[in-house]
Amino acid sequence: MPRMRDAVNRSLAEKLASRKAGICLYGFAPPKQATPPEQLERIVAQQLARFGSLAVDGLIVYDIQDEAERVAAPRPFPFLPTLNPDVYAHDHLGSLAVPKIVYRCVNRDTPDRFIGWLNSGTEPRISVLVGAPSRRSQVGLPLTDAYALAQQHSSNILLGGIAIAERHARTLDEHKRILAKTEMGCRFFVTQAVYDVTSTKSLLSDYALAVAETSGMPLPIILTFSPCGSVKTLSFMKWLGVAVPRWLENELQFARDPLAKSLELSERIFLEIRDYAHDKGIPLGVNVESVSIRREEIEASVELLQSLRRRIERSE
Amino acid sequence: MPRMRDAVNRSLAEKLASRKAGICLYGFAPPKQATPPEQLERIVAQQLARFGSLAVDGLIVYDIQDEAERVAAPRPFPFLPTLNPDVYAHDHLGSLAVPKIVYRCVNRDTPDRFIGWLNSGTEPRISVLVGAPSRRSQVGLPLTDAYALAQQHSSNILLGGIAIAERHARTLDEHKRILAKTEMGCRFFVTQAVYDVTSTKSLLSDYALAVAETSGMPLPIILTFSPCGSVKTLSFMKWLGVAVPRWLENELQFARDPLAKSLELSERIFLEIRDYAHDKGIPLGVNVESVSIRREEIEASVELLQSLRRRIERSE
Repeated sequence: MPRMRDAVNRSLAEKLASRKAGICLYGFAPPKQATPPEQLERIVAQQLARFGSLAVDGLIVYDIQDEAERVAAPRPFPFLPTLNPDVYAHDHLGSLAVPKIVYRCVNRDTPDRFIGWLNSGTEPRISVLVGAPSRRSQVGLPLTDAYALAQQHSSNILLGGIAIAERHARTLDEHKRILAKTEMGCRFFVTQAVYDVTSTKSLLSDYALAVAETSGMPLPIILTFSPCGSVKTLSFMKWLGVAVPRWLENELQFARDPLAKSLELSERIFLEIRDYAHDKGIPLGVNVESVSIRREEIEASVELLQSLRRRIERSE
Repeated sequence: MPRMRDAVNRSLAEKLASRKAGICLYGFAPPKQATPPEQLERIVAQQLARFGSLAVDGLIVYDIQDEAERVAAPRPFPFLPTLNPDVYAHDHLGSLAVPKIVYRCVNRDTPDRFIGWLNSGTEPRISVLVGAPSRRSQVGLPLTDAYALAQQHSSNILLGGIAIAERHARTLDEHKRILAKTEMGCRFFVTQAVYDVTSTKSLLSDYALAVAETSGMPLPIILTFSPCGSVKTLSFMKWLGVAVPRWLENELQFARDPLAKSLELSERIFLEIRDYAHDKGIPLGVNVESVSIRREEIEASVELLQSLRRRIERSE
């Protein structure tokens, strides 16, 4: 159904390209490669139903890397390869009339393979390119090479990039990476799960100042929120590199209902950063994800998305 | 006038000892030792007038150390020795019927000199003991020895301690230092200037959890606020070890009126931490100081104190 897909993705691509504030996305990883066919069918049917009724501007389909090279600590959940996010988004969920942003880890690409992917469709696509999880694990295509190839070979992909506030807290140069990725074709940015208001505000502050210096316009920054219902999920998020302030970790750990607490805290974090971004003229969006496969955490992520969307609509 | 001083200090000592929330203090350093007599007279007259009309529960008179050993960077303002804070508080400002908390750097004491000081008055005194600014500069009496001597030799001094949220952010054990200082006789704690909400909330969170574990009661934590009207004052605060989040530094640096901005931000920080401390059952107080000697920064600090006091009164 290339025609329908075309029209569907265009709506989100236009919102992103026109720097619209308040974009709402829902992020998830494809099922594991090892999922038996009947189970996969059930998951697809469930997701078609869940996402079909979701009031979102688009879905984000992640491309999951192992990332074990990034940190010495053992991964709290085992890494199991997932289905190709492109295939999952456009084939398995192809009948879903919701725009999709597909992540692609170029670390696993060769130049030829990446060019093949760039040329593999004619309809407008939206994609976020992801580099190697650490400098040590750099084996495939470097991210900058991928951006350069995308600019040479394709005009039908709207590209986004990743923005990591935690990196900014350490090096104070993440806004420069955002500007460099903008030069290389990115039109929007998605953060990691936000639990640390301070580093996120600091990144937005430096970004807004840097954009003002060049007389440019800030691009949409999509803040990711990730409900956390257990100590294990929390430790997984921390393993993934998400900064969780000590007080907030305590709140989650000692809450009677950690999941409800994490929704409450996520909403507060969103409101504080939204006000700040609004003052700075940065179009802010949200992406709610669930890093866990526990049913209640998935349901909580849908609930959070809906309440953030209501907050956004009320302020429009 | 020992009788009057007695009654005056007792009011604050009772509030602190009974763990009263909402205590309002004003902190300042004594004039430089090198101040010519006529100028000193003028300063004393000014301060008697200013502090006499100030609606506060008490004054804090700092004991200023050089602290040059603590950091490699040059001190933004030159260090000039100040008058002895005890002498300044109780002699120069002796006629002022306002309770006084006098800081004492025990780093400059010998055991004998410190015991002499402990026994030097009969009236109730309130004092905060300060240790060496860094381990390298440990030359005089160690802080733990000073607390032990205070417990042995004096019963008329209510002792407080310093609590440093910035240290907690690095080592996550400042709450243990607070508990250890409580064991050694401290009945309240005063922070450095608070510009970093996160580390302060994290310290309060760990402190509240640790106190709950021992079935104890949290002691008053006095948050210090320090208006900042210039890049130089900002750099001095950072030099003193105050953590200033990047976004907040940007706000101050690029504000049309940095001083007004710093008051606005300080009020917001206070409100956020007050709500948090209230939830945790921690009696919070405030201390407004001016680290600079610029007239407008001093006036702003008085203004901030008044507006924080109104906030506190409104919530009582």
